[in-house]
Amino acid sequence: MDIATPTSRVSTWLARFSDALERQDIEALTGLFVADCYWRDLVALTWNIKTVEGRDAIADMVRACLPAAHPRNWAIDGEATEAGGVTEAWLTFETDAVRGIGHVRLQGDLAWTLLTTAQELKGFEEPKGATRPKGVSHGVHKDRESWAEARAREQAELGYTTQPYVVIVGGGQGGIALGARLRRLGVPTIIVEKNDRPGDSWRKRYKSLCLHDPVWYDHLPYLPFPDHWPVFSPKDKIGDWLESYTKIMELNYWTRTTCKSATWDETTKDWTVVVDRDGEEVVLRPKQLVLATGMSGVPNIPEFPGMDRFRGDIWHSSKHPGGDGYKGKRAVIIGSNNSAHDIAADLWEHGADVTMVQRSSTHVSRSETLMDVALGALYSEEAVRNGITTDKADLIFASIPYAVLPAIQKGGADVMKERDRDFYAALEKAGFWHDWGADETGLFMKYLRRGSGYYIDVGASQLIIDGKIRLARGQVAEITETGAKLADGTDLPADLIVLATGYGSMNGWAAQLVSQKVADKVGKCWGLGSDTPKDPGPWEGELRNMWKPTRQEALWFHGGNLHQSRHYSQFLALQLKARMEGLPTPVYGLPEVHHKG
Amino acid sequence: MDIATPTSRVSTWLARFSDALERQDIEALTGLFVADCYWRDLVALTWNIKTVEGRDAIADMVRACLPAAHPRNWAIDGEATEAGGVTEAWLTFETDAVRGIGHVRLQGDLAWTLLTTAQELKGFEEPKGATRPKGVSHGVHKDRESWAEARAREQAELGYTTQPYVVIVGGGQGGIALGARLRRLGVPTIIVEKNDRPGDSWRKRYKSLCLHDPVWYDHLPYLPFPDHWPVFSPKDKIGDWLESYTKIMELNYWTRTTCKSATWDETTKDWTVVVDRDGEEVVLRPKQLVLATGMSGVPNIPEFPGMDRFRGDIWHSSKHPGGDGYKGKRAVIIGSNNSAHDIAADLWEHGADVTMVQRSSTHVSRSETLMDVALGALYSEEAVRNGITTDKADLIFASIPYAVLPAIQKGGADVMKERDRDFYAALEKAGFWHDWGADETGLFMKYLRRGSGYYIDVGASQLIIDGKIRLARGQVAEITETGAKLADGTDLPADLIVLATGYGSMNGWAAQLVSQKVADKVGKCWGLGSDTPKDPGPWEGELRNMWKPTRQEALWFHGGNLHQSRHYSQFLALQLKARMEGLPTPVYGLPEVHHKG
Repeated sequence: MDIATPTSRVSTWLARFSDALERQDIEALTGLFVADCYWRDLVALTWNIKTVEGRDAIADMVRACLPAAHPRNWAIDGEATEAGGVTEAWLTFETDAVRGIGHVRLQGDLAWTLLTTAQELKGFEEPKGATRPKGVSHGVHKDRESWAEARAREQAELGYTTQPYVVIVGGGQGGIALGARLRRLGVPTIIVEKNDRPGDSWRKRYKSLCLHDPVWYDHLPYLPFPDHWPVFSPKDKIGDWLESYTKIMELNYWTRTTCKSATWDETTKDWTVVVDRDGEEVVLRPKQLVLATGMSGVPNIPEFPGMDRFRGDIWHSSKHPGGDGYKGKRAVIIGSNNSAHDIAADLWEHGADVTMVQRSSTHVSRSETLMDVALGALYSEEAVRNGITTDKADLIFASIPYAVLPAIQKGGADVMKERDRDFYAALEKAGFWHDWGADETGLFMKYLRRGSGYYIDVGASQLIIDGKIRLARGQVAEITETGAKLADGTDLPADLIVLATGYGSMNGWAAQLVSQKVADKVGKCWGLGSDTPKDPGPWEGELRNMWKPTRQEALWFHGGNLHQSRHYSQFLALQLKARMEGLPTPVYGLPEVHHKG
Repeated sequence: MDIATPTSRVSTWLARFSDALERQDIEALTGLFVADCYWRDLVALTWNIKTVEGRDAIADMVRACLPAAHPRNWAIDGEATEAGGVTEAWLTFETDAVRGIGHVRLQGDLAWTLLTTAQELKGFEEPKGATRPKGVSHGVHKDRESWAEARAREQAELGYTTQPYVVIVGGGQGGIALGARLRRLGVPTIIVEKNDRPGDSWRKRYKSLCLHDPVWYDHLPYLPFPDHWPVFSPKDKIGDWLESYTKIMELNYWTRTTCKSATWDETTKDWTVVVDRDGEEVVLRPKQLVLATGMSGVPNIPEFPGMDRFRGDIWHSSKHPGGDGYKGKRAVIIGSNNSAHDIAADLWEHGADVTMVQRSSTHVSRSETLMDVALGALYSEEAVRNGITTDKADLIFASIPYAVLPAIQKGGADVMKERDRDFYAALEKAGFWHDWGADETGLFMKYLRRGSGYYIDVGASQLIIDGKIRLARGQVAEITETGAKLADGTDLPADLIVLATGYGSMNGWAAQLVSQKVADKVGKCWGLGSDTPKDPGPWEGELRNMWKPTRQEALWFHGGNLHQSRHYSQFLALQLKARMEGLPTPVYGLPEVHHKG
């Protein structure tokens, strides 16, 4: 009879674990894990974002990282809990360089999953709470510089007489979240943004766009939305929020600025980044370059025969201004993922006659269902009531190894199938070509593996069911003067053709800004190596190149949805800060590059 | 032997109290209070901000308010605590109109202080958390209005084709905090502000100004500062925060707008408010008018003989632009309160030769000491760690009747005297005329009683101690062509004279905007009737006219420091919302007017 409480069981395990680490007894250590085990490390031991899978891989990682990291002072934080044969607990620990938070799941008395995350660099903690700045230097000083003067001086000097340590190309949510983290860590940073104002990358999209993820999932670091914030932020409102946030966090944010080129100097170990700042060429020389130009990468513009002869409007979905002015006009949308649906619905709302061309099958999740089934436990009002703060939710999310995720997602997908059975039946009856992903795991796995192939339904599916948005299926053979012709000969007359044909990998930005050679060297971004469509193997265990060292020294990729921008900016910021302060940052497990893009 | 736990003691009391209320048994009810008792009500029973003192006054209030309010469902929230013979507990309750939070202190088995506060109007709750708006209307609609369009339409229409329910004159921290509350309650409101941008009332003050109250005391409603915010906000930083806040909360904030006049129509029951909006005259017709023009009121400009012949610069402290340009010049500051000290120090920093003229004695509290001794328990990092949220701190603060406050403040003042003994000795040795208030109660009582007579030292006192800011003492006899002459014949040559001579009562604004008659009818604002200097009796028990009904129907005064703006805006907003929704709001205990200003 097992009389151990969950906490005492974790305590016993942790004591053995800690002891094995201390003695560097790798055999004893791996003996504390079940055979099918995972250790995910976020910058605490590996100076990488890395999941090692199985005892041998754990042994290899520990052998490599233990001497430099010297992890110690392991303790349980709060009480452990047990459910369905799995005991889980929060941990705290430290290494020579960092203080960390961990999370462990035991099966019986052995570890199944272990998460270790760096939370702060010792000696370089973010000033906050009791260590926040005073704001005024007490006493009185001749020629004192006020806050406004100091800020104005910084803005005048940085990039001209002083150099930033980091340049972030792209001032969307990703660049802004990372910029805020770096600001709090005291890392001089310039964010380069082509638009006029922070938030314009949202504002400039079609009129009816709202975030597809609910508010609890969308907080930025440090400054949560007030509790009346709408569940789904309208695009202009989130744009305004990003603008205020940028000011409140005192980011050095260069608007109307485009990055022309970036060159790495292997000798001086710095970048030469040439930017056009509102017509003026400025040459920046940062030590680190972050591409935060959108996880979606460079737009995929297909080369259909005859595109140049089309007499109407034709553009990629990323350039589509919205449905204003298309009342009574015929619109053909090539593609059937999120953008295609949103643009189709918006055009229909504006009175256009809309046809969507499905070239391949698409998964649809209803927004409401997704919120309840997929996010409810971690990101919802209920989660808030249960004491699951955003930080905690992010860590719980991070504690699930990518290899374990499909089984969990499959369970959710099965619930959704059942719950929305009538919806899917109606959609298929309307001729919609629907799928649940390669292994029936639904939306989130498609997002992680390929970043495409799905629609979060906020209304367009009903228009399809009702025949208000018409469907066509097949490949585009050519574009004529007056429309699109499909491979089966179907003619689709059009005044507007929107190419909702997706985006390439983020390393396409490296090709544009740095060189094709560097883009090839770092390889494809995003995707897990799941060997499913658009995510070729081998298995990587993490998203390729995201938020972690790449094969190009001092070149980093940052992006993802608001949740990822928030959470992983923490680990990218710590990696950059550690380098600025000259801490040793030996990277364990930099992956091989298997795909160029 | 008393074996009751604090909670069971409060439970017993509360059961009796609730029962007496239910039976409308006034005698039984007053028998539950000690002789020297207080019941403070914030809009829950009295539709007023009202403290009743003693059993008879409680009996009168309860008799008047019970039938309409029908307070009930009293419960203890959390565990009661006991210290020094006083047992205290948080309560919840409701009336016909509101849900409330209460707080009680027992001496033995009887109540000493009781606080009852309205938290929300039943049926008119602020949408938040689980009731927050969706943001997107699910499904798809022809000609849908986007958030940006709806907002633009509101801004174009409100004040022109539709009328606001409330006009707030003054867009400083007070108007902004109230505006945010009203926005969440769905009360159409326009805030009228003379400056170019929200926050300018801070930005336009002298360069080195920082808030004298620490960050924990300064949060605005709904959106707390991030935890790296400096302890003492620099003026431009708080200005920028107010500007972002105004945008984030979607306030209808009219900049470059001055209120020319306001007239109440007794027949139609609305105001005619004439404003100049950036050169265009606009006539507004709100049902309610709030003056939030600064608790300080209209500047007191003294009439010294010869002021018009002075050849240098002379102006009131509120118009002083800062010390730039006064290097090597002689400055004379008339007055010795907060503004006088701040301006003197700023001028000294800029290299001016500065003399401060003390016309009467001043109290000085060192900022650091004040933070520890006076605010530490409620507004500090330690309080945050102890689980005292800002909301809780505000309620604890509010639970102490004004009549009880001097004894508590005296205790704090005694600690400060001892702790800063050397400082005060040095200050007096330098010739500074120092006092601790009429009854040795220190700074905060002076603030409540008269809003003047003190300096929160952030450095100027050391300059006085060191003789760097020179002191003169006495009345100003006249201003000459070249300086100021005191009654004792002292000549103070000057290139600049700053009249740090304070402000009148807020009803001076009513005189300017409405009429002298209305100003006289509502009478003096602020002050408790303590019968101490500048706060003549009789005793009022609350601040005069602040955040509550006045003798002029539909005219309200809002203001105070950031803490007061935050907390009392809640109760003013509920009063306005109740009137907009046509709820019965019988006001109990509207005070007589004893002083015109």
